[in-house]
Amino acid sequence: MITYNPKSWLGLIFHLTKSDTLTILWKELIFIFIFTLGIAFFEIHFFADAVVLEKLFAVYSILGFVLSLLLVFRTNTAYDRWWEGRRKWGELVNDSRNLAVKLTALELPAEDDAYFARHIGNFALCIKEHLRNGTKFELLNLTEEEIAFLQKLDHIPSGIVELMYKRLNDLKKAGILSEEDVLRLDRNLNGFLDCVGACERIKNTPIPYSYSMFFKKFIFTYVVTLPFAFVVNFGYYSSIIATFIFYVLVSIEILAEEIEDPFGNDDNDLPTDEMAQRIQGIVGTILDKE
Amino acid sequence: MITYNPKSWLGLIFHLTKSDTLTILWKELIFIFIFTLGIAFFEIHFFADAVVLEKLFAVYSILGFVLSLLLVFRTNTAYDRWWEGRRKWGELVNDSRNLAVKLTALELPAEDDAYFARHIGNFALCIKEHLRNGTKFELLNLTEEEIAFLQKLDHIPSGIVELMYKRLNDLKKAGILSEEDVLRLDRNLNGFLDCVGACERIKNTPIPYSYSMFFKKFIFTYVVTLPFAFVVNFGYYSSIIATFIFYVLVSIEILAEEIEDPFGNDDNDLPTDEMAQRIQGIVGTILDKE
Amino acid sequence: MITYNPKSWLGLIFHLTKSDTLTILWKELIFIFIFTLGIAFFEIHFFADAVVLEKLFAVYSILGFVLSLLLVFRTNTAYDRWWEGRRKWGELVNDSRNLAVKLTALELPAEDDAYFARHIGNFALCIKEHLRNGTKFELLNLTEEEIAFLQKLDHIPSGIVELMYKRLNDLKKAGILSEEDVLRLDRNLNGFLDCVGACERIKNTPIPYSYSMFFKKFIFTYVVTLPFAFVVNFGYYSSIIATFIFYVLVSIEILAEEIEDPFGNDDNDLPTDEMAQRIQGIVGTILDKE
Amino acid sequence: MITYNPKSWLGLIFHLTKSDTLTILWKELIFIFIFTLGIAFFEIHFFADAVVLEKLFAVYSILGFVLSLLLVFRTNTAYDRWWEGRRKWGELVNDSRNLAVKLTALELPAEDDAYFARHIGNFALCIKEHLRNGTKFELLNLTEEEIAFLQKLDHIPSGIVELMYKRLNDLKKAGILSEEDVLRLDRNLNGFLDCVGACERIKNTPIPYSYSMFFKKFIFTYVVTLPFAFVVNFGYYSSIIATFIFYVLVSIEILAEEIEDPFGNDDNDLPTDEMAQRIQGIVGTILDKE
Amino acid sequence: MITYNPKSWLGLIFHLTKSDTLTILWKELIFIFIFTLGIAFFEIHFFADAVVLEKLFAVYSILGFVLSLLLVFRTNTAYDRWWEGRRKWGELVNDSRNLAVKLTALELPAEDDAYFARHIGNFALCIKEHLRNGTKFELLNLTEEEIAFLQKLDHIPSGIVELMYKRLNDLKKAGILSEEDVLRLDRNLNGFLDCVGACERIKNTPIPYSYSMFFKKFIFTYVVTLPFAFVVNFGYYSSIIATFIFYVLVSIEILAEEIEDPFGNDDNDLPTDEMAQRIQGIVGTILDKE
Repeated sequence: MITYNPKSWLGLIFHLTKSDTLTILWKELIFIFIFTLGIAFFEIHFFADAVVLEKLFAVYSILGFVLSLLLVFRTNTAYDRWWEGRRKWGELVNDSRNLAVKLTALELPAEDDAYFARHIGNFALCIKEHLRNGTKFELLNLTEEEIAFLQKLDHIPSGIVELMYKRLNDLKKAGILSEEDVLRLDRNLNGFLDCVGACERIKNTPIPYSYSMFFKKFIFTYVVTLPFAFVVNFGYYSSIIATFIFYVLVSIEILAEEIEDPFGNDDNDLPTDEMAQRIQGIVGTILDKE
Repeated sequence: MITYNPKSWLGLIFHLTKSDTLTILWKELIFIFIFTLGIAFFEIHFFADAVVLEKLFAVYSILGFVLSLLLVFRTNTAYDRWWEGRRKWGELVNDSRNLAVKLTALELPAEDDAYFARHIGNFALCIKEHLRNGTKFELLNLTEEEIAFLQKLDHIPSGIVELMYKRLNDLKKAGILSEEDVLRLDRNLNGFLDCVGACERIKNTPIPYSYSMFFKKFIFTYVVTLPFAFVVNFGYYSSIIATFIFYVLVSIEILAEEIEDPFGNDDNDLPTDEMAQRIQGIVGTILDKE
Repeated sequence: MITYNPKSWLGLIFHLTKSDTLTILWKELIFIFIFTLGIAFFEIHFFADAVVLEKLFAVYSILGFVLSLLLVFRTNTAYDRWWEGRRKWGELVNDSRNLAVKLTALELPAEDDAYFARHIGNFALCIKEHLRNGTKFELLNLTEEEIAFLQKLDHIPSGIVELMYKRLNDLKKAGILSEEDVLRLDRNLNGFLDCVGACERIKNTPIPYSYSMFFKKFIFTYVVTLPFAFVVNFGYYSSIIATFIFYVLVSIEILAEEIEDPFGNDDNDLPTDEMAQRIQGIVGTILDKE
Repeated sequence: MITYNPKSWLGLIFHLTKSDTLTILWKELIFIFIFTLGIAFFEIHFFADAVVLEKLFAVYSILGFVLSLLLVFRTNTAYDRWWEGRRKWGELVNDSRNLAVKLTALELPAEDDAYFARHIGNFALCIKEHLRNGTKFELLNLTEEEIAFLQKLDHIPSGIVELMYKRLNDLKKAGILSEEDVLRLDRNLNGFLDCVGACERIKNTPIPYSYSMFFKKFIFTYVVTLPFAFVVNFGYYSSIIATFIFYVLVSIEILAEEIEDPFGNDDNDLPTDEMAQRIQGIVGTILDKE
Repeated sequence: MITYNPKSWLGLIFHLTKSDTLTILWKELIFIFIFTLGIAFFEIHFFADAVVLEKLFAVYSILGFVLSLLLVFRTNTAYDRWWEGRRKWGELVNDSRNLAVKLTALELPAEDDAYFARHIGNFALCIKEHLRNGTKFELLNLTEEEIAFLQKLDHIPSGIVELMYKRLNDLKKAGILSEEDVLRLDRNLNGFLDCVGACERIKNTPIPYSYSMFFKKFIFTYVVTLPFAFVVNFGYYSSIIATFIFYVLVSIEILAEEIEDPFGNDDNDLPTDEMAQRIQGIVGTILDKE
């Protein structure tokens, strides 16, 4: 995620970054510009009496309305996924902190505090990678045995949670934790797998296939035929106008695609790297105080 | 569900699948095309002075606005059902994993672990079919007695949950699980029937009858009378325009109908087969580690 | 509720039922048709130079936009109530099943199982009637004493829940249920009164009075004055157009009114009768297995 | 709140109440009517060639679109507050009933039942007044000591909840209630202060100041300059049209202001008086059965 | 936050405050006014036959529609953050009160009551500053040791919660609190870090970078090129109209930016100072009654 000041206008208007739709679409914009010039040339020189097309504008106006509403629907659903992804990571932060704080207040042996500090941090680092290309063990702080244990599993995050639940049960058996302490800690530890499940859902379920296909077909047909309606009215100027409308409409769809899966490394993706490191850092200072 | 890359434009624009609205509507599109040609022919040759109809366009513009808003409302509610269905299945995934992880951490006898692994998997497989045509016992991993027991029940998923609750109570009586352990496991097991109930609700309650009827009547009247307004302005070209508008408006309604009940086998339906198998797989590796 | 296939177009377009807005509005539609014919007659014969009214159309276009947005707001809020009513009943189904499953797994004496089966079913039947005209005791499966007890109460559903809580406490005192068992059962039983309270809220709180009044005044003024704008442009044809616009706009408001209170016996109301019977049936097979 | 039949059209269209926006705005409507007449007089007699203004209409059309969307946003947020206020009161009803039912099922001494019946009722009556001008002790059913105790507190509702928690702890110490009973009752009693906190939030946080200011400036400028665009097109008739548009747009804003704070005594406010009395009544019959 | 009467129209229309968009934008408004005058001058004197631009208006009409929908989307998301921030603080108020009320009902030693009163208040004061520029210890009511303890931590709010959890565990060990009492108190204390986490999320995650950039580019291009379409139609009057449209569109974006991060000291920010002091005050009177 790019950190920026949302109130700085000039900086944002005249700035181009990798994720700017201008950077992404410049080839298509040039194509539409030249394409419209060509249509203008033909209409002006060969079909100068195509007045019937003049009224076409009203049709594009109605369809433009439907298209705008659909694009806003698209933007809304994409943004909701992005924001839900952020909210779920926020809940993981909360549960991690609450778990660490409750554990440290229980004054467990130092070794156990270190164990939980290690694995709460591991969990955040693990799911960050899990939501990209799969977890790499070398990023995590694991013992040899733990690696051997986790390698046997399909789903690494569940394994890390299991390691924590096992230690809780051991401590309960040893009489260090009461039954009710475990109940209270379970409130937060239970949330760890809820977070990873929700993020997997966002990652693996894009907008239904037929919608994606229909939106693309509609936008494509609309912007590619638009020049026919413009040339009669604006002549060669049409190319500027058609290019701008193309830029606006396609940008909205492109942006929605960008933020729909928010767990990658793109400019608009959530800062999961930093969040995982913050969880590790904060939990560390809470639990390892010596 | 079709897995696809939402960012691939060309692939999606020039691709036709079974669930594409072009495939579904091609007969109707041809009909509208010919119908408009016919009207154009009549108007041009017999009612050439029907200028009064020229202004009809403004009326279609207002009504088109109302219709677009209603179609977006329709799309929103259908998408919400689809997404809620996915969310409920996601919660089932989470509860299944949490339950498995907590159970394995409690170090039950291997036989009990296997029992829960079997029935957590059974539950997912069962409701997947339950939400289509009813559960088939041969798909599930059941003993003879269990089949006999389940056959007596109206609602198979409840029966599977009952089998798990019974085992929990047996383990509690045997002193293997404490009262508080059961309380913690109940947190997740309680979610199983919540999931199936929510999915049944989505499946059995389409949008109210009168709305469905009104939307269809409105769209039908709108698109069938549209050519009258177009012919005066665009002559024979009207048939292309009317067909495209028909395609856009009816597609939106058709797509909403497609995703409203997301538990079937259609292209746009949720991948419940895969999700059920993943639950079975993950829970299996967590609980049966020998 | 009418059960129907939302994908059947022809069936729905050419079908008229009691709750179709065409059936409800036919008198008003005929009135508007004749009223517009009358205005057309007067304008054409006596005020043929009322050109000033021609531009009135643009005013109706702006106002039509505001009106459409308000009608969509109205539709959204009405649908939300309808859907929330359904969701709450769905939660009751879930809580009823979970409660029955947990109780049967606890292996209570057969008499107690029967007692809870009876009252879980009673509760659903009771609130179904309670949300219409008040509960009738003869529909419920009650003993004489229970009827005597419930008659003293203001709020019958609370009384049925009380009967269940009392039995739970008796079983706890008798040592058959542990304290933690009651805690777990309370999770679901607590939801019973939440459901009835939420439904009472939906039933007793229509959209604020001033909104209802304002919407009706706005729609009425809009559709009744609309013919003045149309006659100049479309002559006698105006009556068809005005009638269709009237049909569309008033239908949306009428449909919203129809589904706002979803607990009655109308075509669009929720199938609470069937749901209550299903709860009774399923809970019965779970708890009374002999 | 006015109780009314939302399906009665004629009654609502030709009815004027204190909260009708016609009643609220009649002075402003007359002012706009005369103001537009004046502008019409000046334009017709002195600036008869102000044709440039004719096209102004298109500008008002675009701006009218923006304004409508903002008004719908305004309506949505105001309605959400109103409905959330209602929902929170509904939750209080549910928690009150559940608490009463659970308490009575625990068969406490009659004196304790009466104590809780008194204070559950007191709480509802108290927050109803608390959300208006502050609680008056004479409305509540309190002993002298309790009044003395509550007078020392900043926040009366918290005090009433404290009285109930104290009694619960006393009963627990006396061995009448078990630890788990208190846990279960806490589920509902905890909701009492959540309700009052949510209502205070709705009451004390109107829409952000700058929005309110911007909306009013926008609406005011729009409706006051509107006549300039109308007079060229409609002459003296403009006054009727401008007045109607003023009525529609300003009404939407006025209605949103009306329902934004829903705890007062206005026609559109929630029936908190009746709800508080119903809580008192129902809880009374549940707990005091002799 | 400015406290104001949302029903006072004249006061709000003719009032200018620091956060009014008129105050923020006056330089830009003057610039657009003069810029449009300049364009008008050039077009009228040098390109008097630029009729082609007359129809440009229709293009701006379509684009204005897309822009309005996007601005409403922007307003909605910004408002949702603002309102969620308020809701989370409301939950902190509720949890603080509930915690205080439950603690005082447990009749702990006076010293412990004072300890919790101090730290519940500290927490609210702490996160208020934490969400601005970081907590200042001198604002909090802390002992020397507590300051030394908190200085070692990355995240002060977690430290304060830890202090409370530690005392709860000490009281449990000393036999003053039962296990179940701690469970009940945990319900509320657990919410403290949820609140701070949610607020950090709102503060640190503005709308995705590419959206912010795209909106600003779109609005900028739209309003800066608008005069070209207006001058042909309205001559020198265009400057008034263009300035007003600029004011309206840019204001909506500016207002959204204003309320997106609601924890600062701006006019539209949430009254976190007052809320923190109210929490401190109310909790104080509940817990320190001598």
